[in-house]
Amino acid sequence: MNNSEYIHEAWSIVENGFDPAKQKASESLFSIGNGNMGQRANFEEDYSGKSMQGTYIAGVYYPDKTRVGWWKNGYPEYFAKVLNAPYFTGLHVVIGDELLDLAQWQVISFKRVLDIKRGVLVRTCEVQSPNGKRLAVESMRFMSMIRKDIAAVKFSVKSLNFRDIVSFVPYVDGDVKNQDANYDEKFWQITDMVNEPKQAYLQSKTLKTGFEVGFAMSADLYFNGQKVSAMPERQKSDKKIQTSITWRIGEGDALSCVNFISVNKSMDFESEMIKQVCLKNVELARSAGFDVLLKEHTEWWANKWETSDIEIEGDVAAQQGIRFNIFQLWQTYTGEDARLNIGPKGFTGEKYGGSTYWDTEAYCVPFYMSTASGEVVRNLLIYRWKQLGKAIENAEKLGFSNGAALYPMVTMNGEECHNEWEITFEEIHRNGAIAYAIYNYVNYTSDVDYLAEYGLEVLIAISRFWAQRVNWSDDKGKYVMLGVTGPNEYENNVNNNWYTNYIATWCLRYTLETIDLVKRINAGRLAAVLEMTAFDALIEVELWKKIIDNIYLPQSKGIFIQQDGFLDKDLTPVSGIPVKQRPINQHWSWDRILRSCYIKQADVLQGLFFFEHEFDLETIHRNYEFYEPLTVHESSLSPCVHSILASLIGKTDDAYQLYLRTSRLDLDDYNHEVHEGLHITSMAGTWMSLVMGFGGLRVNHGRISLNPVLPEKWQSLSFKILFRNRLLKIKVTDNEVDVRRERGEVLTVMINGNEVAI
Amino acid sequence: MNNSEYIHEAWSIVENGFDPAKQKASESLFSIGNGNMGQRANFEEDYSGKSMQGTYIAGVYYPDKTRVGWWKNGYPEYFAKVLNAPYFTGLHVVIGDELLDLAQWQVISFKRVLDIKRGVLVRTCEVQSPNGKRLAVESMRFMSMIRKDIAAVKFSVKSLNFRDIVSFVPYVDGDVKNQDANYDEKFWQITDMVNEPKQAYLQSKTLKTGFEVGFAMSADLYFNGQKVSAMPERQKSDKKIQTSITWRIGEGDALSCVNFISVNKSMDFESEMIKQVCLKNVELARSAGFDVLLKEHTEWWANKWETSDIEIEGDVAAQQGIRFNIFQLWQTYTGEDARLNIGPKGFTGEKYGGSTYWDTEAYCVPFYMSTASGEVVRNLLIYRWKQLGKAIENAEKLGFSNGAALYPMVTMNGEECHNEWEITFEEIHRNGAIAYAIYNYVNYTSDVDYLAEYGLEVLIAISRFWAQRVNWSDDKGKYVMLGVTGPNEYENNVNNNWYTNYIATWCLRYTLETIDLVKRINAGRLAAVLEMTAFDALIEVELWKKIIDNIYLPQSKGIFIQQDGFLDKDLTPVSGIPVKQRPINQHWSWDRILRSCYIKQADVLQGLFFFEHEFDLETIHRNYEFYEPLTVHESSLSPCVHSILASLIGKTDDAYQLYLRTSRLDLDDYNHEVHEGLHITSMAGTWMSLVMGFGGLRVNHGRISLNPVLPEKWQSLSFKILFRNRLLKIKVTDNEVDVRRERGEVLTVMINGNEVAI
Repeated sequence: MNNSEYIHEAWSIVENGFDPAKQKASESLFSIGNGNMGQRANFEEDYSGKSMQGTYIAGVYYPDKTRVGWWKNGYPEYFAKVLNAPYFTGLHVVIGDELLDLAQWQVISFKRVLDIKRGVLVRTCEVQSPNGKRLAVESMRFMSMIRKDIAAVKFSVKSLNFRDIVSFVPYVDGDVKNQDANYDEKFWQITDMVNEPKQAYLQSKTLKTGFEVGFAMSADLYFNGQKVSAMPERQKSDKKIQTSITWRIGEGDALSCVNFISVNKSMDFESEMIKQVCLKNVELARSAGFDVLLKEHTEWWANKWETSDIEIEGDVAAQQGIRFNIFQLWQTYTGEDARLNIGPKGFTGEKYGGSTYWDTEAYCVPFYMSTASGEVVRNLLIYRWKQLGKAIENAEKLGFSNGAALYPMVTMNGEECHNEWEITFEEIHRNGAIAYAIYNYVNYTSDVDYLAEYGLEVLIAISRFWAQRVNWSDDKGKYVMLGVTGPNEYENNVNNNWYTNYIATWCLRYTLETIDLVKRINAGRLAAVLEMTAFDALIEVELWKKIIDNIYLPQSKGIFIQQDGFLDKDLTPVSGIPVKQRPINQHWSWDRILRSCYIKQADVLQGLFFFEHEFDLETIHRNYEFYEPLTVHESSLSPCVHSILASLIGKTDDAYQLYLRTSRLDLDDYNHEVHEGLHITSMAGTWMSLVMGFGGLRVNHGRISLNPVLPEKWQSLSFKILFRNRLLKIKVTDNEVDVRRERGEVLTVMINGNEVAI
Repeated sequence: MNNSEYIHEAWSIVENGFDPAKQKASESLFSIGNGNMGQRANFEEDYSGKSMQGTYIAGVYYPDKTRVGWWKNGYPEYFAKVLNAPYFTGLHVVIGDELLDLAQWQVISFKRVLDIKRGVLVRTCEVQSPNGKRLAVESMRFMSMIRKDIAAVKFSVKSLNFRDIVSFVPYVDGDVKNQDANYDEKFWQITDMVNEPKQAYLQSKTLKTGFEVGFAMSADLYFNGQKVSAMPERQKSDKKIQTSITWRIGEGDALSCVNFISVNKSMDFESEMIKQVCLKNVELARSAGFDVLLKEHTEWWANKWETSDIEIEGDVAAQQGIRFNIFQLWQTYTGEDARLNIGPKGFTGEKYGGSTYWDTEAYCVPFYMSTASGEVVRNLLIYRWKQLGKAIENAEKLGFSNGAALYPMVTMNGEECHNEWEITFEEIHRNGAIAYAIYNYVNYTSDVDYLAEYGLEVLIAISRFWAQRVNWSDDKGKYVMLGVTGPNEYENNVNNNWYTNYIATWCLRYTLETIDLVKRINAGRLAAVLEMTAFDALIEVELWKKIIDNIYLPQSKGIFIQQDGFLDKDLTPVSGIPVKQRPINQHWSWDRILRSCYIKQADVLQGLFFFEHEFDLETIHRNYEFYEPLTVHESSLSPCVHSILASLIGKTDDAYQLYLRTSRLDLDDYNHEVHEGLHITSMAGTWMSLVMGFGGLRVNHGRISLNPVLPEKWQSLSFKILFRNRLLKIKVTDNEVDVRRERGEVLTVMINGNEVAI
C-alpha cells in the first residue's frame, strides 16, 4: 500500500491507508504527550522504513557543543538540545519466526486515528507476512494526564489465517541519539538496568547536565480478552531492557499485550529514589488496569474541552484545525510546573532546540490565560523571574551593567544557547515581549500583587537594559537604537527598528507606571525592591523619561517605517515574486533576502497588535495596507497577527485566508517540513486569530469587550473563556452575539460597543 | 634557560637565548620558504615542548567541512584549509641512548639567526644531556630559490666532554594533521613509501582534492668535515621514512648530517612521474653538494635585494622591519606560477585558510609591480582571469545573472570557501579591488594589451555585478546599494557604504573607458569580447551611465560618511577607550563592537587612498582628521593606508607612528598572535607606506612623481624600483632627493613638482 489520505473530521485526525513516504509526517501529526513527556507517533512494533524516533521528557536537555565558523566574543558555548530520550513504548512482535514490520509486510488496510477528544492514539490495520500469515493489528496508547509519569500501550494481534506462536517483546531502549547531534555524539549514559522477568527497569543519565531518568515497565498478556499468565522470558541486551512473553494462537484468536511504563526524573526525585518511585507507580498503574487509566485520562480531557473548546459550524477543515491546535498546546504544556516552558516543537521533534523563546510571551500567554486558571500563566511568568539572575549575567557578558537584564533568545536554564550573533545579540525585542506578558497577564487577571512580588524586579532590569542600549544621536537630536534585529528576521543589524524602539520605550513607561502602582498598593514592598535593585529613583527615572520623550520612531507619510533605510528598498509586493521562487527562504540566497523588502513575520504590525489601544484604527489600517503586501509569512508566527488586524479593520476575507494558513499549517503541511515536528507555539496564534480576531475579544480596564466578525463560509463560531472566575461561552452567528455565563458571578461585557450584563 | 631576546640587526633576525614560552612565536618569525614550499622554524631534532609544526606546499589545500550554526542558502560547502604537509626536515639525534630534545636537556647557550640577506636559517647552541653529556649543536637550512623542489639541512654536533655513538635519523613524517581541522580528521593518505637505506621516498595524497606530493630524501655524513660512508640502517615505521646513520665520536669531534629533500607535486607532474623526478633531483642536489646549492641560492637573494632593498639610516628597528617584510614577501610568492597566490599567512601558519584574499590586489600588487618584472603582477591578474568562470557561478548562486561576476572573499580554486554570510555575501567591495588592480597594473606598466586580451572580460563581468547589485531608491531619487560590508568589518549589513558605492561606480567608469581604449587599439578584439560576453552596448552602457550619474554617496559637512546612519553613533574617539579594553576585539562583545563607531581598518580612507587623484588634498585631510581618531587598526592592513595618507597631508609624525605599527607588527608582536603565523600580505602594505608614503611615489599618465617626506629620526631613506625597464634608486635625505638610474634608458621624473630627467 502506497497511498494514504488525511480525513477532515471534527474531533480526530485520521489517516486512511498507509504511505511510507508520509510516515515521518504522520509521526509528527499523531504525536501524543502529557506536558511531562511526549512522543512522536512511532510505531510500537519494529519498522525498518524511514522514521524519526522521538521521545522527549520535559525539562531534560543537553548542552551540545556549538558549531560556528568564526567565534566572536560573547558567543554562547553550547546549544541546548531537546533530548531524544530512551524509547519506552517499543514492542517487538514475532509471529512464528517472522518479525512484524510494516515496511516488509504487505499492508492490506490501515487506519490511524488521533482521537483528540480523548487524547488517545489508535491504529488498526490488516497485514500479511512474507510467508503469507494474515494478521489484524490494533494498537492504542496514551500518556496519562492524571498520572503524569505513566504511559499505557495496548497492542493486539488477531490471527486471520494461521496457527503459530506469537511473542511480544516490550522494551525500553537506552541506546538512543539525537539526529541533530553536532558531533554525532551520544548524550545518555545508562546508570542502572534490571532486566528480570518480574522487574524491568532502566535508568539513564545525561552527560554534562546529569539529568537522571528512570523507566520501569510492566506488561500483561490477554488471550481472547482474558488475562493469562505467561512466563515472561528475559532477553539479554546491553542497552535495552526487554522481556519476551509468548503464547500460541490459532485462526480467529486475539492476543494482546498491555504495557505500562512509569517515567520519573531527578528534577522531581532524589536520584536514588527514582527507581523505587518508578517500580511502585508502574505496579499501581498495572493493578488499576488499562481501562481505569484510560477513563481517568479521558475525563481530564473532557474537562479540558469544557473550558477550551472552540466550535466552528460550516467549515470542518477549520474546525479540525483549531481543535488539533488546542489539543497539541495542552499536550505540550499544562502549566503546573514553573520550571517548564513551551518548546516551539513541543514533544514532536528536535528542531530549534531549547524550550523557551519569546513565542511563549508573545503568542502563548493569551491562550493559557483564557483557557486555564491564572496559575498557569503566572508560572510562565515566574519561570522568567527565576531566570532574572542569568538574564543579568547575559547582559553583563555583552557589556551592560547596573543590573540590566537581557533575556536569552533561546534557553533551557536561563542561559543563552543560540549562537547566531544577529539573533542572540541583536534580536533584543524579546526583552520587550517578556515585559508585555506581565502587562497582559495583570491586565487580564487584575493580579497586581504579582507586580509587587515578582514583576517589578523584572521590569526594572529590562528597562535598565533599554536605557543602556539606546544612545543619543547628535545627528538626529534623538535617542536611537543601533544594530538590532526586529521580529522580521529577514532583516538584521538594522538601526531604529520601529517595533523595538517602540516596545523599549513602552517598557520604560510601563515600569514607571508599575513603580507608581506598587507604591500605592504596597509601599513597603516597593521600598524593598528599589533597595534590592539599588534603583536610583532620581537619575534613572529622569533618564528614562528623557528617553521616552525623545526616542526616534521612524515614520513617513503616516507609515511607521520598519527601520532606517527601509524605504530605499525595491518595494515590489510579494505578488510580484514568481510562484516557483516561494518560499523565498528555500530559493533565494541569504543576502538577496536581506536586501529585499520582504518581511518574514509581522514586525511593525506586531507592535500595532500589541499596542492597538495606543493607535487609531486609521493608522492601523494604513500600516496594514502598506506591510501586508510585503509580508511573505515564512514564519509560522506571522499570519495570525495579520489575521487579527485584518479582522479588526474589517478585511474579513484577508483574515480568513490568513487564518487558514495558520490553523492548518501542519495538517496541510504548507511549508513541507511537518516531518520535522509540529509548530506548537504558533498554534496559540491560531487560537488568538479566532478569539481575538474573529471573536474580537479584548480586555480594557478590567472589562471584556467583543467585536466579532464572521467569515462568510461559517455559520457560527463559539468559544469559551475563563475570565476572573467566570466561564463564558460566546457564540457568534451572522447576526447575533450570544454570551452565556456558565460559571461564576454576573459581569458586564461590551458587545459591539454596547454594555451588556451577563 | 628561560629567557631570550630578539636583537635589532639590519640584515638578520636574531634571537639570543632560549625561552620555551616564545618557541611558537619564533617558529613563525624564523619561517623559511621559496614560494613553492615553506616551513615554520620547527627544530630539526625532537622537541617535546610547545610547538606548532607547519610545513606547507604552495597550492595544495584541503576542503574541510565547514562549521556553521544555521545553514542558509548560498553558503559554501567547505572551507579551504592551507594544508600542513608531511614534515620533511626532521632529524632524530641520539647520543648514546639519549635523544636530543631542548625541552629536556639543559640549554647553556642558544642563538638563532634568520639571515635575510642570504635566506638561511642558522642555529647554534650548547646543551647538556640529563646524563651530563655536553654538546655544541649547529644547524643550517634553506629552501633553494633556484631548485624550487629542494630543501637542504646541515645539522652538526660536536662533543664537548664525551665519547659515544651518535645516530642521526633524518626522516619524512607522513602522519601529520592540521591544528584547525574542524572535525579532527586527517587530510593526507600515504600512497607510496620506500624506506631503503639507498632510497627513501614517501608519496602522499590529499583526501578529496587528490593532490599528490612526493618527498625523496638523501643524506650524507661528515666526520670532522670529511665525508664518511656510514652504513645507513632502515628504521621501520608505518607513516614515516627514516634512515639511521651512526658514527662514534670523541671529545672535540664534530659529526654532521647533510640532508637533501626533493618535494614535487601532481600540480607539476603526472602523479606516476613524481617519484622519478624526486629521486633524480635529490641525487642531483646531493652530488652538487650543500655549498654549491647554498651559493646558487645566495646569489638569487643578492639579485633580489639588488632590485628590492630599502635602506633606512638612523633607525635600525625600522630598517630591520622593512627588510624582514620584503624578505617574507619574496619567500611567499615569487610570481612565476599563475596558479598560485599570496596567502595572508604565507607558509607560516594555518590560520584564515585559503590563499587568495583581496589583500593581493589591494596591498600586494604595488610591491611586486615595483620590485619585479611586470610578469609577476600579470600572473596575479591572470590568476583572477582564469577564475572568472567560477566568479560568474558564484554570482549566479546568489541570484545574479547575465555574466555578472562576484569574486570570492577567500579562495583556492575560484570557489568561495569562507562562510560568514556578512563577509562572503556582503563584503563585495573585493570585486572593486580586483578591477582596481587591473587599472593599477596598466597605469604602472602601460601594458594596455593586457586589457584587450584579459582585463576587459573581467571588468565587464564585475561591472555587470555592480549594475545588478544597486537598486533605485524612490525615497532618495538615487541608486543605492543595500546590505553590504565595507573594508571595516566592525560594521556589516550596512546601506550605502561610501567606499563600496564609490568603487562600484568607478568600476563602471573604468570599464567604459577600457571599452573605448580597446576599441582604439584593437577594435577586432573588442568586437570579439563584446560578442563573447553578449554585451549589449546600448542598454548596458546606458544603465551604467545612469548609475554613475545617480549613485548615492553619503556625505555631510565635507565628510564622506562611511555608511547610512554612521553619524547616529556615539562618536567618542578611540583615545576614550580604556587601555585595558584594547584591542576591543579581545574585550568587547561582537554586538558592542558593531554598534560602536570604531573602525577596524581604513574604509572611507581606503577609497581616498585608491582614488587620491580624484580628490583634493583638503578633502583628504578633512576626512583623515575625522576617521583616524575613530580607527582602532585591529586589522594588520589598516595602519599602512593611514600612514600613506598622513605622509600625503604632511602629518609626518602620525605617518611614522603608523609605519612602526605596520612594519614591526610581527617582530614586536603588537597583537599577541605571532605564534599563529606572520601577517604576510600586510607586509606589502609596509612597503607601500615607505615607498608611497614617505617616498611619495606615484605614477600618473605614465610618469613617476616623488614627493618625499622623512621622519625626523631618519637620516635617509633609499629604495629601488623597477619601472618600465629601468631600475631606479631613490635616496631621500633631509634636504635632498637623489634619483639614480641603475639600469635602462633615460626618463623624466617629477620630483616635488619639478620635472627632472634622470
